[in-house]
Amino acid sequence: MVTEVHTRPVILREILGESLRELRTSENLTLREVSGRAQVSLGYLSEIERGQKEASSELLNAICGALGVPLSSVLRQVSDRIDSLRTAQVTQLPLRPRVQAA
Amino acid sequence: MVTEVHTRPVILREILGESLRELRTSENLTLREVSGRAQVSLGYLSEIERGQKEASSELLNAICGALGVPLSSVLRQVSDRIDSLRTAQVTQLPLRPRVQAA
Repeated sequence: MVTEVHTRPVILREILGESLRELRTSENLTLREVSGRAQVSLGYLSEIERGQKEASSELLNAICGALGVPLSSVLRQVSDRIDSLRTAQVTQLPLRPRVQAA
Repeated sequence: MVTEVHTRPVILREILGESLRELRTSENLTLREVSGRAQVSLGYLSEIERGQKEASSELLNAICGALGVPLSSVLRQVSDRIDSLRTAQVTQLPLRPRVQAA
């Protein structure tokens, strides 16, 4: 039986959405509160958190402002999360010999 | 004479565009080469580099792949750049007393 290893590419909006949701819940803020502060509809914010919609740069600023977190911190968290996902994927992968370029 | 201090908010797509352009030129790659590899039109790639268009998560993956740079590294670079921009802005700002919450 072949064990299939899923190495779906990392999708930034999904990792970003997870991070934004974690930051919001860690601050005990509701979707309604953040959507009000950031002046984005509750449904759209929810879709961003679920990685279903891309947030524009301006909207991302507004959400970070509503959460009281600098954009740079969010990006660093996202970056770290992507690295840890990749590490997890690599350790799951069977070792394959590298194809040497001629 | 009042010296006006510009503290325009940091716009992610602009910083991201600058970083992508720097990475491309540091690899001595042309817009044409990267657009071909990433399967994005040259004009669109150029707009992304100039911060005029948002790159979708999938497109960002394709561009990072074309540049041979992990997405996490690009995001870390962007994050560092935002921090240094903010530091520069803060050091330019006149000191103002903090408003204390009651």
